Amino acid sequence: MASMKKRADAALKLCGGSEKDYRKEIVKTAKALYKMNNVLIISHKAPDGDTLGCAFALCRGMRKLGKNAVVRCADEIPQKYSFMYEGMEKQEFKPEHFVSVDIAAPHLMGRLADEFENKIEVCIDHHLSNSIKAPVKLVDTKAAATAEIIWILLRAMGVELDKGIASCLFAAISTDTGCFKYSNVTPRTHLIAVELMKYEVECADINFKLLDEESPAKLELKKQALSTLEYCCDKQCAIITVTSEMMEQSGASNEDLDGVSNIPRSISGVECGITMKQVADGWKISVRSSDKVNASELCGKFGGGGHKAAAGCKFGDDYESAKKQLIDAVSEVLK
Amino acid sequence: MASMKKRADAALKLCGGSEKDYRKEIVKTAKALYKMNNVLIISHKAPDGDTLGCAFALCRGMRKLGKNAVVRCADEIPQKYSFMYEGMEKQEFKPEHFVSVDIAAPHLMGRLADEFENKIEVCIDHHLSNSIKAPVKLVDTKAAATAEIIWILLRAMGVELDKGIASCLFAAISTDTGCFKYSNVTPRTHLIAVELMKYEVECADINFKLLDEESPAKLELKKQALSTLEYCCDKQCAIITVTSEMMEQSGASNEDLDGVSNIPRSISGVECGITMKQVADGWKISVRSSDKVNASELCGKFGGGGHKAAAGCKFGDDYESAKKQLIDAVSEVLK
Repeated sequence: MASMKKRADAALKLCGGSEKDYRKEIVKTAKALYKMNNVLIISHKAPDGDTLGCAFALCRGMRKLGKNAVVRCADEIPQKYSFMYEGMEKQEFKPEHFVSVDIAAPHLMGRLADEFENKIEVCIDHHLSNSIKAPVKLVDTKAAATAEIIWILLRAMGVELDKGIASCLFAAISTDTGCFKYSNVTPRTHLIAVELMKYEVECADINFKLLDEESPAKLELKKQALSTLEYCCDKQCAIITVTSEMMEQSGASNEDLDGVSNIPRSISGVECGITMKQVADGWKISVRSSDKVNASELCGKFGGGGHKAAAGCKFGDDYESAKKQLIDAVSEVLK
Repeated sequence: MASMKKRADAALKLCGGSEKDYRKEIVKTAKALYKMNNVLIISHKAPDGDTLGCAFALCRGMRKLGKNAVVRCADEIPQKYSFMYEGMEKQEFKPEHFVSVDIAAPHLMGRLADEFENKIEVCIDHHLSNSIKAPVKLVDTKAAATAEIIWILLRAMGVELDKGIASCLFAAISTDTGCFKYSNVTPRTHLIAVELMKYEVECADINFKLLDEESPAKLELKKQALSTLEYCCDKQCAIITVTSEMMEQSGASNEDLDGVSNIPRSISGVECGITMKQVADGWKISVRSSDKVNASELCGKFGGGGHKAAAGCKFGDDYESAKKQLIDAVSEVLK
């Protein structure tokens, strides 16, 4: 396996990395994957571009090495990701080995958790909180997308990339970085993009499909939600409300809600953006904030939590009371 | 000037280029700039991130070489670009040399055209249609942003980059590529980003400020415009209407309109998105389209024009008649 070490080194050099410990981890994981046949690769539930891009890129790569490999996901794969499995043949075999990609915790396997959570042999991820149990774990929290790690692994295994694999990986990176927009992007992210572009990836088409395209339902939801927009705390806080009726009337999905939750915080001058979403037993709150407001601490006051810039919490049925408590808490921070 | 040639070669190598003719052009332009002192650098009117980022990066670079240099623009520079000139000292001098950056035609200098259009000595741009008259012209249409060319030129001149210069160039590239999203992005674009990231550029903050942040006025305009959204041609065409009243009520600027014009085409299934904007003497039409509809040909039927995927035309006062003619023309193409 000397050549695997060499190939890992070459890949790391191409994307600006060189730490010996990291290379060892890569080689260990690549070896484990290389030995497998009849592989089931598992994506997280409510799948996004990173988990799916990683799964299909790895699956295509394993097949190029002559192995049987399939992807499984607890939930249906949205149509916009269909290019990822386009042209792949159906394979029927009894899975013997199990790999998880971009899954931070067993429950994120959804309904597949019961069957597979204790069978994972290789876990590849970039979430700090990763709690999957597996003999081989490669969790690189510096990776903007898990796809960065998959790219290095495929190179280490000697898989010759092609348009299919490269498109999956590019889509995965584009998803998790908002197309190179967020603070998780590193030089490595750009350098891997350069490598992927060598395989005629239709980058702009993929970006449009994954980032800009909106369903009529989502747009209808946006319109309705925008009509509830209100400002408080000297216009430094903006609140948007999404009722169950709006969800029903628009036909929007929970995935569509993502784009809506980002609106209040995107308004110039707003330090804290709040989205109040009606759920069966009350109101689910999503907070996005600037440096001036710690969203996690704010939500912590109401039993919730999350990250500094994005967090959530829950309230009971009383909308006005929930809103008042939130506004009071934000005022306290901003005063 | 042998070292200039060497440095140009080194810069081109870093960003994946190697054509000898191109290097010659770079050296010629870099030499012309290097010889100048008391330089006025001109941006185009209604300035965007590329023209301003180029102008301030070049200005900062020239000053690092010990020269007097200032930036001029016909219109006021929007607040969001203020980081570009932050910390720069005021210089008072009589300009002797004139450089245009990212300006495709003399009239785009705005009210500065009369004074300067015949004085430009070096014109640096990436627009195919460039019609500026200047003894030294460097028009590289493969550059996603003019800032790519400025980066190479600064390197060729031996300017040591710093956070200020790199931030200007990064902002310029981010603006013209929609943050690496559009089809104009090449490996060179990503490679230059990697180089710029070496100078502690606050990329995510810049991206947020330039791409995601929206004024309350823009959001109000979006809300009002969304309420006019209608579909035709079997939902393959979507039309949005922006009246003068909406512009006035929302307080939105024409710049704010950009984000609105992109909405109809972003709807999944829509091949042709139309925005009808009321102007003093009728309706200004903006068309965005997929491969299935040639926007330029469509607008050409009504005396307008533009690109295949984005074009415009004008109609008189009769809104219903204008809309009917447009819908008929789109139906014809899509049938």
